[in-house]
Amino acid sequence: MSTRRFETPDPELDLLYRDLADQDLQPLWELKGLLTPTPTVRSVPHRWTAKELRALGERAGHLVPIDRGGDRRVLACANPGLDGAPYAVSTLWAAAQYLGPHEVAPAHRHTPAALRFVLEGTGVWTLVDGDPLAMSAGDLILTPSWSFHEHHNTADQPMLWMDVLDLPMVAALEAVFFEEGPSEEVERLTATVSDSERRYGNPGLLPPPGLRARPRHSPLLAYRWADTDLALSRRLDATGAEFATLAYVDPTRGTDVMPTMRCEAHRVRGGSRSPLVRQTGSRIATVFRGSGVAVVGEHRFDVAPGDILAIPSWTPWRLEAHDPLDVFSTSDAPVLDALGLYREEELS
Amino acid sequence: MSTRRFETPDPELDLLYRDLADQDLQPLWELKGLLTPTPTVRSVPHRWTAKELRALGERAGHLVPIDRGGDRRVLACANPGLDGAPYAVSTLWAAAQYLGPHEVAPAHRHTPAALRFVLEGTGVWTLVDGDPLAMSAGDLILTPSWSFHEHHNTADQPMLWMDVLDLPMVAALEAVFFEEGPSEEVERLTATVSDSERRYGNPGLLPPPGLRARPRHSPLLAYRWADTDLALSRRLDATGAEFATLAYVDPTRGTDVMPTMRCEAHRVRGGSRSPLVRQTGSRIATVFRGSGVAVVGEHRFDVAPGDILAIPSWTPWRLEAHDPLDVFSTSDAPVLDALGLYREEELS
Amino acid sequence: MSTRRFETPDPELDLLYRDLADQDLQPLWELKGLLTPTPTVRSVPHRWTAKELRALGERAGHLVPIDRGGDRRVLACANPGLDGAPYAVSTLWAAAQYLGPHEVAPAHRHTPAALRFVLEGTGVWTLVDGDPLAMSAGDLILTPSWSFHEHHNTADQPMLWMDVLDLPMVAALEAVFFEEGPSEEVERLTATVSDSERRYGNPGLLPPPGLRARPRHSPLLAYRWADTDLALSRRLDATGAEFATLAYVDPTRGTDVMPTMRCEAHRVRGGSRSPLVRQTGSRIATVFRGSGVAVVGEHRFDVAPGDILAIPSWTPWRLEAHDPLDVFSTSDAPVLDALGLYREEELS
Amino acid sequence: MSTRRFETPDPELDLLYRDLADQDLQPLWELKGLLTPTPTVRSVPHRWTAKELRALGERAGHLVPIDRGGDRRVLACANPGLDGAPYAVSTLWAAAQYLGPHEVAPAHRHTPAALRFVLEGTGVWTLVDGDPLAMSAGDLILTPSWSFHEHHNTADQPMLWMDVLDLPMVAALEAVFFEEGPSEEVERLTATVSDSERRYGNPGLLPPPGLRARPRHSPLLAYRWADTDLALSRRLDATGAEFATLAYVDPTRGTDVMPTMRCEAHRVRGGSRSPLVRQTGSRIATVFRGSGVAVVGEHRFDVAPGDILAIPSWTPWRLEAHDPLDVFSTSDAPVLDALGLYREEELS
Repeated sequence: MSTRRFETPDPELDLLYRDLADQDLQPLWELKGLLTPTPTVRSVPHRWTAKELRALGERAGHLVPIDRGGDRRVLACANPGLDGAPYAVSTLWAAAQYLGPHEVAPAHRHTPAALRFVLEGTGVWTLVDGDPLAMSAGDLILTPSWSFHEHHNTADQPMLWMDVLDLPMVAALEAVFFEEGPSEEVERLTATVSDSERRYGNPGLLPPPGLRARPRHSPLLAYRWADTDLALSRRLDATGAEFATLAYVDPTRGTDVMPTMRCEAHRVRGGSRSPLVRQTGSRIATVFRGSGVAVVGEHRFDVAPGDILAIPSWTPWRLEAHDPLDVFSTSDAPVLDALGLYREEELS
Repeated sequence: MSTRRFETPDPELDLLYRDLADQDLQPLWELKGLLTPTPTVRSVPHRWTAKELRALGERAGHLVPIDRGGDRRVLACANPGLDGAPYAVSTLWAAAQYLGPHEVAPAHRHTPAALRFVLEGTGVWTLVDGDPLAMSAGDLILTPSWSFHEHHNTADQPMLWMDVLDLPMVAALEAVFFEEGPSEEVERLTATVSDSERRYGNPGLLPPPGLRARPRHSPLLAYRWADTDLALSRRLDATGAEFATLAYVDPTRGTDVMPTMRCEAHRVRGGSRSPLVRQTGSRIATVFRGSGVAVVGEHRFDVAPGDILAIPSWTPWRLEAHDPLDVFSTSDAPVLDALGLYREEELS
Repeated sequence: MSTRRFETPDPELDLLYRDLADQDLQPLWELKGLLTPTPTVRSVPHRWTAKELRALGERAGHLVPIDRGGDRRVLACANPGLDGAPYAVSTLWAAAQYLGPHEVAPAHRHTPAALRFVLEGTGVWTLVDGDPLAMSAGDLILTPSWSFHEHHNTADQPMLWMDVLDLPMVAALEAVFFEEGPSEEVERLTATVSDSERRYGNPGLLPPPGLRARPRHSPLLAYRWADTDLALSRRLDATGAEFATLAYVDPTRGTDVMPTMRCEAHRVRGGSRSPLVRQTGSRIATVFRGSGVAVVGEHRFDVAPGDILAIPSWTPWRLEAHDPLDVFSTSDAPVLDALGLYREEELS
Repeated sequence: MSTRRFETPDPELDLLYRDLADQDLQPLWELKGLLTPTPTVRSVPHRWTAKELRALGERAGHLVPIDRGGDRRVLACANPGLDGAPYAVSTLWAAAQYLGPHEVAPAHRHTPAALRFVLEGTGVWTLVDGDPLAMSAGDLILTPSWSFHEHHNTADQPMLWMDVLDLPMVAALEAVFFEEGPSEEVERLTATVSDSERRYGNPGLLPPPGLRARPRHSPLLAYRWADTDLALSRRLDATGAEFATLAYVDPTRGTDVMPTMRCEAHRVRGGSRSPLVRQTGSRIATVFRGSGVAVVGEHRFDVAPGDILAIPSWTPWRLEAHDPLDVFSTSDAPVLDALGLYREEELS
């Protein structure tokens, strides 16, 4: 498509506009909406229900083998505001992945980083660069940028988890690389405790500095629900508040687990609610336990375990708990932070 | 626009696809081109010539007062690969700004950060949060994110400079904020040495730690051509190479001058050339002195002072000098670096 | 004492030496031993046995009330190489502290930082700035620089622990400050889980960055033996080695727990030994479980639980385990590291 | 010397004291002066006059060849409070070094770091790891830890400079290593601009991150008086104050030039004075230009160019200028800072 040709009744100016277009130039003074008082947000608040995700995942499980055309059985959340792009919010991909009993999703790697938050099931292992990470409901599993990863289900039940990737950001930066893993059949490795957890999963204790891995992401790749559950309880005890948020961190630095995604666990006491806040940057949330309402912009979504929520940039949101409500969320906050663009406002 | 409805001759699967679309979900296995072996790059190599930029700037200077519709007389480089978007490369805005004799471009601020590289002229001051920074050919002037800035020309000649902004990135992150400056007429301040330079422009000497400003960007806002020229000569002397690159840095940290843009000065000895390299991330370059050829992908652009070049992500490029060639370039490398996505390859 | 007057048979030079001394100057060329090929080390390898420490602690418990002259019942290890200075090695104070049943050691604070490693007993609480930290055998408790701390024993048994302070370093830097706590009787607070542990003791989970304390030391002040024990087992599992070392770290940064002392836990499998190493800087070690031999320089010390060892700078040392051997050690390594003076050699 | 045996009229306690001494233990409650409300400071305020330093340096120049017993003609400042130790303050060595016309001080290296501040003369080169650094009055020259360094005088005049080393600290940490340089005669290299300055001496411009040296100290090894002079003028202009202090910094990080010594330049306008302050840590100062009074504790020292001052820890000090007064000072502040022990108070 050629460069836009602006038009104006002033003939001399119109001639200038023609010559600008010929030279692939545009007159700034005719461009509207570039520098807006507050952000122009393309994605809209949205909820995908666990009920539908599970039912559609099961149907796909019957109809679509894992090797049909791709190598993952994934239902991608497509935000209605994004003109058909398969992204849940402007900067994040979110999806439900359904892995049937004894199925295997083969190894590959890509520069977009991914995380998995397990909605239900147990008995699946994700191998990250060969290290088998057990997956069970409530666990957070990281497959950082450019690490080989595969999944296999040793159980007789399927597993449903949420995938989140920074794919829209990496694509916008034009830095997507992808590579298939080795094609030979791999051994379906399992382990009670992953190597990653043995080395980096002990509170306050690490290998000596000289023996420590220094990747760009957390060397701890699995965060267990039992730990998260206890930490949320302790946080509420320590602060006495109605609402707690904890950040999942790289234990070697205390920073976000990956450079593009901040992961957080939230707990709201039954009958209480979190403050109404808005932040620059996009967020995906999913309910793990409890029920209540997620207020996102003008919407009030009733939420149940497994529901996935799109919380667009600079959109006010809060959680209201009927029962005690546990929510996992992830956002592009580390990127906004690193670039000096993070803003946060508490509205009530 | 509604979520894309995939179709397939298999009736049961087709029904699933309909139900997925109804729920704003998409089947990953039908999506193509998401995870490509190497980056999908939208912008294309391009050159805007100084000759045209200057001529069109002058014409706009006659026809368009600075307050017509916007408050800058700016010709935006529109990369032919970007479907009419007014961006020079996928992540950066570049433009030629023309300020006539005794004109004033009034104050505003925005979260997108900007830099100015002066192509020709002298006698203009940019006020950044009130500090008057003199502008002359070869100088780099920073107007960091959210700092008020205005320009005024005290000379009888116009000035032409290149603007580069991280606007496409900040827009993609949905974090654009904008604010007009105070509307009253301001005094047209000038100063021989800016406050910024007095405090931060001395080699190897800084205010004591407790008295140092700690913004997210360099507190030194002006980099003078005389310093750059000498530093490039010294670098070639020190290494004995045919080609030198220097990074403009925040003197309080040694890091990039702003969190979103790396600025570099390049010098190629006459008759020599720089290595052919490619990097993830997008780059804008402009020639300051000398002549030669810029190889960008399949293109060989003859270049002269004031030409602006678009160097897309992962596209091989090199500089070939007829005369000694001095080039300024800026890229989104700090972002790719911070996110663990920076890759660089030397191809020859 | 006046400045040293050097003497020489050369009368003119001797006159110069007299005049130098009169002006408080010394001729470098007459000074010996200032710049030695390898470090001049004043402290010597030494072991204090648990048996003696316990017996003498008990006797002191009968004879010396806690308020006699000082406010701690502490037996300070005096290295025989240090000319009577009450320091265990050149840069560290080490001591056995004995707190009788239901005794209280009142609050004070000082710029020298301290740590406590509990050798035996349970039922004591250390309050650090009011936060009650339970103490039991194998636990590491921090009382960082300038934090108020007091100890009280709720049990019917005494407790014996090892204190280590960076006092010789802080004294050499002439930066010792000291302050008594409030004199009124305090409530003998206890708690099952300290506030510090509730907030910072959860693996891989922290308060959000904005709500995180940012002291110069670890905000986690208690490290439990059960965690250390498990982490050492996992480390041996992960590496398959005969010997494991783990660093106690600040969970918000992954750095040493305090800026002056590195804390480490070591485990040697029964019948095995650690490599013979030497490092710049001084180290204190104590055995927690098992028996064996500590080789330190020319010495072979038989060691049993509760023994305290002085390992001087640049002195080769190793651990040899009869039974599985667990050792806690602390050193001034963070200081040597920060100053660029840390060297380490493996000798076998 | 054996461990101190405390005595007491109480026979049972006296027996305990005997047994403690036998076991190399000391009763804390009998030790006095360990934890003092404010620092115990051993060194005293002192001034060594340029007149005496120069006269004695010249006499030594006639009588002592550079290879007599050592390889430097150095007059070490011995603080009267330090019991004959050849240190100017508790943690720093300071000395006047006198290098005669055409003399050479041969190469060696040591872990104690050194700096040279040139009091008078020109035409000397210090080679640091082979890079020739010109020395002239007012220049600061660094010879960082473990770098080979030698000096040679190409002029017909002698040079007098002040040496400061962190030797007392490195010795207290028992980390002194020393090595002679190669014994063969070296070429007396000179250069107008050192390699260090060519690479790192340009304001706001550095080699790209991947080509940058990353030592523990500043890679810029020479700081020229002309730059310091201009920076001090600009600082006074920028702040409008009566007194300016600037820190010499590592241009790649903005940190202190070496991990153990902070270097500062001070200027007091004629007839004005600096605030009365005290800091933890020891400081050495020397006057470069002007005259006035240095208040240090209870002392008022009249000062002239070349005088060296000892400013002990926690001792109030100020500068009073008759003429405009330029003073160079260096202190152990980076160490106190790194260890969390730095305190500063303004007293007037």
